[in-house]
Amino acid sequence: VRIVIVHSTASAARAWHEAIAARLPEAVVAIWPQELDEPADYAIGWNPPAEFFERETRLKAFFSAGAGVEQIVGHASAPRSLPIIRLEDAGMARQMAEYCAYEVIGWCTSRRLYDEQQRLARWHEPRPRRPAEWPVGVFGLGFMGRQVATTLRALGYRVHAYARSPKPLDGMACYADHGGAGDFTAFLRATRVLIVLAPLTSETRDRFDETVLRQLQPGAYVINAARGGLIVDEALLALLESGHLSGATLDVFRTEPLPPDHPFWRHPKIRVTPHIAALTLAPEGADQVAEKIGRLEAGLPVTGVVERERGY
Amino acid sequence: VRIVIVHSTASAARAWHEAIAARLPEAVVAIWPQELDEPADYAIGWNPPAEFFERETRLKAFFSAGAGVEQIVGHASAPRSLPIIRLEDAGMARQMAEYCAYEVIGWCTSRRLYDEQQRLARWHEPRPRRPAEWPVGVFGLGFMGRQVATTLRALGYRVHAYARSPKPLDGMACYADHGGAGDFTAFLRATRVLIVLAPLTSETRDRFDETVLRQLQPGAYVINAARGGLIVDEALLALLESGHLSGATLDVFRTEPLPPDHPFWRHPKIRVTPHIAALTLAPEGADQVAEKIGRLEAGLPVTGVVERERGY
Repeated sequence: VRIVIVHSTASAARAWHEAIAARLPEAVVAIWPQELDEPADYAIGWNPPAEFFERETRLKAFFSAGAGVEQIVGHASAPRSLPIIRLEDAGMARQMAEYCAYEVIGWCTSRRLYDEQQRLARWHEPRPRRPAEWPVGVFGLGFMGRQVATTLRALGYRVHAYARSPKPLDGMACYADHGGAGDFTAFLRATRVLIVLAPLTSETRDRFDETVLRQLQPGAYVINAARGGLIVDEALLALLESGHLSGATLDVFRTEPLPPDHPFWRHPKIRVTPHIAALTLAPEGADQVAEKIGRLEAGLPVTGVVERERGY
Repeated sequence: VRIVIVHSTASAARAWHEAIAARLPEAVVAIWPQELDEPADYAIGWNPPAEFFERETRLKAFFSAGAGVEQIVGHASAPRSLPIIRLEDAGMARQMAEYCAYEVIGWCTSRRLYDEQQRLARWHEPRPRRPAEWPVGVFGLGFMGRQVATTLRALGYRVHAYARSPKPLDGMACYADHGGAGDFTAFLRATRVLIVLAPLTSETRDRFDETVLRQLQPGAYVINAARGGLIVDEALLALLESGHLSGATLDVFRTEPLPPDHPFWRHPKIRVTPHIAALTLAPEGADQVAEKIGRLEAGLPVTGVVERERGY
């Protein structure tokens, strides 16, 4: 088989090339725009340039090198019939759980306060905080949302979740779209720490506007590690300003890299990280891709195929 | 029964008074130095003044209001025959796991780097770090060490432990004193993140001197949430200076509050927190104390009685 890697960063492309070549020694692997002798059978990548699909017209499937697929589902030049296959975990759920645990603990136990006290050489013990005071709501229950929920629960937090369709979640309440708008409101009202982990689709774009964010508990925190487009920037800023929200941790943005003059960078209640919550680990990702190419070549079904109508 | 609360902070004493009175409505409860009509049967507290034991001569037991008991085991005025009873958990293990998880994640995933990048409005993605690169060694396997170990393991870290006597630890390696000095060396050599959680005893005082700390893996981090006396301050500073250690998080100190001119406060590689890793929660603690007083009054044995020879 012929495989082309088309990634936005050269180092990621090299890592994928090495990992795939090691797992499929009989395959011909190239990094775009390097030419293969014939059109590729499979592509692995991230938001290819328009001319990519003009040249690669015989692809049997496109493997997304990240968890989110909105850039390829909505790609102007990608044929609608091209199967898109998502990575399933590949080390990302663990990283995401770690990222969110750090941020939830950080906000809920006022850890940044101690950095401030240290600068002043000030010794002050606060009253103990209890995790029951900080109900966590996880929006989106894919492989990442699920691991984040169970991790925070193991740390002692009360956790509930919201998903497109109801999912069993080991004793945690799961609100769902199927319940209608009332369930979304109930989810928001039960939430003091919101963790956004859903894919960006036509249903989730701009979902967290001012009306919605206002329904979170007073003093709530927002953690967005999904896609910037789910939260309306101006709404977040307005509610931080009004005090209804106490803080936000943002790993994802409408424009990335976040432009240097964006108000998020210098906002005292916002923590910015550069889209690092869950990095794709090429070796783990390549394990999946290699196994799936093997199945596809053998005519067997594979998991992780994107449903275009729902957008993920 | 008559119960006296003798705590170093007035607010903690009030919290204990309220919690004990609610659970033992028939008991007479007072806050030292308030007088009871007769000597108290039980005391609950933390490092009482010398005159406390001169007045309270009929105590059947002293309940420590914290996890560490070195200040009461070594108390100059406390009778050697007085049973000392430790709290067993009371919400502290959960807090400690949360504290250590935050620090381990913080150091191992360079989270403070992002604070720095945010100050500069700088967008830079590092290479992914893997928890396998950060073997964690937990020194001390009481109820807190155990929960810290299992929490970090669930977050994906490789964890091993060192205890006075070997303890089964769900698949994690446990080094022990019984193995002789060689086992302590093996523990240190396997450790890149050291978490100190043992009680302060004659065996553990000054245990982490320069010779010992030097056996940790190059670039190691040290987290001390036990007692300041276990680590030699000057050794820690020297190895941070030499670069053998990369950083330290310290919640406990030889003198508390940490004096304003102590070098730890302003050290760029040291995080200082004011002994807040695991605060006693009076309601949970009072549940235990009330239950144990009930058993003692009925002539039944209780757990948590300190063995003076071993010091905890």
